[in-house]
Amino acid sequence: MTDSTGLSRRELLARFGAAAATAFSAGAGALPAAEVGRWDMSTDVLVAGSGAAGASAAIEARRAGAEVLLIEALPRFGGSSAMSAGVVYAGGGTALQRALGVEDSVEQMFRFIAGAGGKHPPLEKIRLYCEQSSAHFDWLVAQGVPYREELALAMTVPMAGESLYFSGCELAWPARELATPAPRGHVPVAAGMTGGRVLMEALLAQVTALGVVMRSGVEGRRLVVANDGRALGMQVSVAGESRTIRARRGIVLASGGFIHNREMVRNYAPELYDCAVPWGNVGDQGMGINMGIGAGAAALRMHQGFAIVPLYPPESVLAGIVVNASGQRFIAEDTYYGMLGDAIAYHQQGRAWLLTDHGNELPAWQDNFLPVAQANTIGDLADQLGFPKGALQNTVAYYNRYAGNGEDPLFHKRAALLRPVQGPPYRAWDLAVDKSFVPAHTFGGLHTGPDGEVINSFGEPIAGLFAAGRTSAGLPGAPYIASGLSVGDATFFGRRAGLAAAGQGGAAV
Amino acid sequence: MTDSTGLSRRELLARFGAAAATAFSAGAGALPAAEVGRWDMSTDVLVAGSGAAGASAAIEARRAGAEVLLIEALPRFGGSSAMSAGVVYAGGGTALQRALGVEDSVEQMFRFIAGAGGKHPPLEKIRLYCEQSSAHFDWLVAQGVPYREELALAMTVPMAGESLYFSGCELAWPARELATPAPRGHVPVAAGMTGGRVLMEALLAQVTALGVVMRSGVEGRRLVVANDGRALGMQVSVAGESRTIRARRGIVLASGGFIHNREMVRNYAPELYDCAVPWGNVGDQGMGINMGIGAGAAALRMHQGFAIVPLYPPESVLAGIVVNASGQRFIAEDTYYGMLGDAIAYHQQGRAWLLTDHGNELPAWQDNFLPVAQANTIGDLADQLGFPKGALQNTVAYYNRYAGNGEDPLFHKRAALLRPVQGPPYRAWDLAVDKSFVPAHTFGGLHTGPDGEVINSFGEPIAGLFAAGRTSAGLPGAPYIASGLSVGDATFFGRRAGLAAAGQGGAAV
Repeated sequence: MTDSTGLSRRELLARFGAAAATAFSAGAGALPAAEVGRWDMSTDVLVAGSGAAGASAAIEARRAGAEVLLIEALPRFGGSSAMSAGVVYAGGGTALQRALGVEDSVEQMFRFIAGAGGKHPPLEKIRLYCEQSSAHFDWLVAQGVPYREELALAMTVPMAGESLYFSGCELAWPARELATPAPRGHVPVAAGMTGGRVLMEALLAQVTALGVVMRSGVEGRRLVVANDGRALGMQVSVAGESRTIRARRGIVLASGGFIHNREMVRNYAPELYDCAVPWGNVGDQGMGINMGIGAGAAALRMHQGFAIVPLYPPESVLAGIVVNASGQRFIAEDTYYGMLGDAIAYHQQGRAWLLTDHGNELPAWQDNFLPVAQANTIGDLADQLGFPKGALQNTVAYYNRYAGNGEDPLFHKRAALLRPVQGPPYRAWDLAVDKSFVPAHTFGGLHTGPDGEVINSFGEPIAGLFAAGRTSAGLPGAPYIASGLSVGDATFFGRRAGLAAAGQGGAAV
Repeated sequence: MTDSTGLSRRELLARFGAAAATAFSAGAGALPAAEVGRWDMSTDVLVAGSGAAGASAAIEARRAGAEVLLIEALPRFGGSSAMSAGVVYAGGGTALQRALGVEDSVEQMFRFIAGAGGKHPPLEKIRLYCEQSSAHFDWLVAQGVPYREELALAMTVPMAGESLYFSGCELAWPARELATPAPRGHVPVAAGMTGGRVLMEALLAQVTALGVVMRSGVEGRRLVVANDGRALGMQVSVAGESRTIRARRGIVLASGGFIHNREMVRNYAPELYDCAVPWGNVGDQGMGINMGIGAGAAALRMHQGFAIVPLYPPESVLAGIVVNASGQRFIAEDTYYGMLGDAIAYHQQGRAWLLTDHGNELPAWQDNFLPVAQANTIGDLADQLGFPKGALQNTVAYYNRYAGNGEDPLFHKRAALLRPVQGPPYRAWDLAVDKSFVPAHTFGGLHTGPDGEVINSFGEPIAGLFAAGRTSAGLPGAPYIASGLSVGDATFFGRRAGLAAAGQGGAAV
């Protein structure tokens, strides 16, 4: 990947022309154009952020004929996307699904995304995403992202180079009654969890080949706006000095979420603040979101995000039961770990325990969670945990009564993982979000339309301003129903935002 | 109360001088001062909204020597506060508490408000509110709000003119272990639920007596801002025509929440969107919040609000049990109905049922909830409801095993309301938020400091701009832990915002 490490301060500054007179504004959320003496630099389309959304936007804007400048605050390009597994949630009959004989349809994919998550999701965007998902996968392939025609059966990101798997809660109850399950997690061929690096290498190679001007070490500070509200450019910081960049056609804010801006997380998403592992590139400081808000944009679902409780692998531990502080089960243990984490972080005050018996303990290498109680009877275990009198015993007795017949009346755990809780030693593993390995990431962001156009609090688009990826409020919500929705949304709507910023919005991508 | 009903369009307009050239802006979230030809009207402090927050702000700004203009979009003054029960949550040893021999302390009040609700509440504001609560109650009395030295014992707003009661979840588990319970709901002497009208009559009488200029039928549209971000005034609509008002010292946005702006509710607070009864004055359209966002303000906790499931009176029905779709109990039935509603709306997908037996049916006059199943056995009842096999039977058996001994291991329901589920007929009452009488109101709003100063996305105050009441993100959150926190917060921080807008921020009020 490209980076600017090694450039001197003077070399960095030299790329941005002479210093103009503009000082950083204070108090004003955006800088009126009248305050900008002259622009230090100009381009057709300015893209802020070099993750999946920014790279996809830059590619499409450049292909649409625009001069494109891509800036990145950190010394290295790739954003949080490069740290991710690079999963793209795609379906409706992608080339890879068809090659592997997987049946899927746009309608089933839509039913799943629209129905398995939170209330009142953005249906128009979901519809568009599903209808064009197969074509979008072809685009990823065309950019050089490598996929292998192998299907993985495990519930986690494939480790042996397979490129398709069930990346979400499709097979778990109740989602499996909502829509016909299909594997839709499309993973670049990669070693272990490095699919995001592979994805970003391909996209950034395109960015470079197309002649997008790339500048790292450049941090956005304020948008520059005209009196009529149009976004004209951006005030940035380069090596500690202020510079201004004019964007003649449009600006795409694609600088990620805000999981590493702790004050923002505490204010906006208190449930995520408590999660032990802020997950994402250190550049996830919310600067794109804050620049947009500063220019009058509305921000949606700011409290939402993922909280992952990675209980598996191994999947065998899911034969145990997960209980809350009342000793009650509250979810199908075999659901996607993003669903489990959401239930714990948002709906169980951040606390839960996994109960195992002699047959399914966590192996030593699975050290995400620690055993906090061990006993030879369920009652002793419950006492050690301070559970309500008789509650855990009642839960286990009820569960066992049906599990022996292959039934789980409450949450319909899959038969392969369903059996009564057996003999001692019984152990309880702490799933508390603040004490265990629980990665969290933000999903709230700027309100955008289907072309990434940023919407203000009066429902009007802000001319010249676009956002994508986690800087926008996109498809991923709480609960997070499947891996790949975030990078999938970032690439898909990043492309649309890039096209629209170049002046070609509304096209099928 | 004052109103402008009966004024002709010409008379309304005449109060705002000649029409200036300013057209309503589109796209721009705020109007640059350069776009305002000349101001149609001017004042020192402009207060938008005439509920408890706006009236309190106007009173204090005027007493601080400012010329004050109070505008109200509707024809009648009083806002949602006038529709409320007028409860103010106050404590730490108020005059009324002391007169009634009620022991309380600032510290216990702080522990309750800071600890009984959601994660990471605004501690600085809570501290200030508790420390000055007793003085604030004196202020309300001094404005002429009438209170009677009688303590009510019921859990609902007193109907016989008593002025102090337990208005929240203080006595229920787990709050009662968090802080020493004290009754802190201070209610104006009123007939039934009309305390809000009494409160607002007193406050608006002060507003009038002090010489605040009051104008109804004037709706805010956009803030007018200087190049340095300072809020200079407001573009308003009067009888369909645009006018501009200059505020030389400051603007207080106090125009309520947004429960009646259905698009905003769906976008920001989907859980509240499903609640059957949007509760509040029709003026709760979010205009103050949207004007603030348009000027670059941050908005916090936009998904939060109250969802009230008014299970009582009569309190006797709380001897029944409340269960979720898994047939499990999930909360102490005898908690404050705001806590119950929050648990259902936000954490149980909006669905729950009350189970009663022959001893505690809902009386015919309690028609908030409808019986949806009736049977002679728990099993038959569960089958009718489509509950998981054996789940409700298991819940009832476990509950009964301890209830006979006066114990509720799970949620510690008070002994007076605790007894085993007895004989048939068993009935299930639908508590679904979309099918029952479930009032909902929004709590999200502009990010403000302790003086009501509106904060932008970069953590900086926007000069000249203040907000209070439900236009701001104040003390009330989700879950809503006590009646009176909303009107209490509105009056307390409304006063501080008014003082600060007049140039005297930071004072003890």
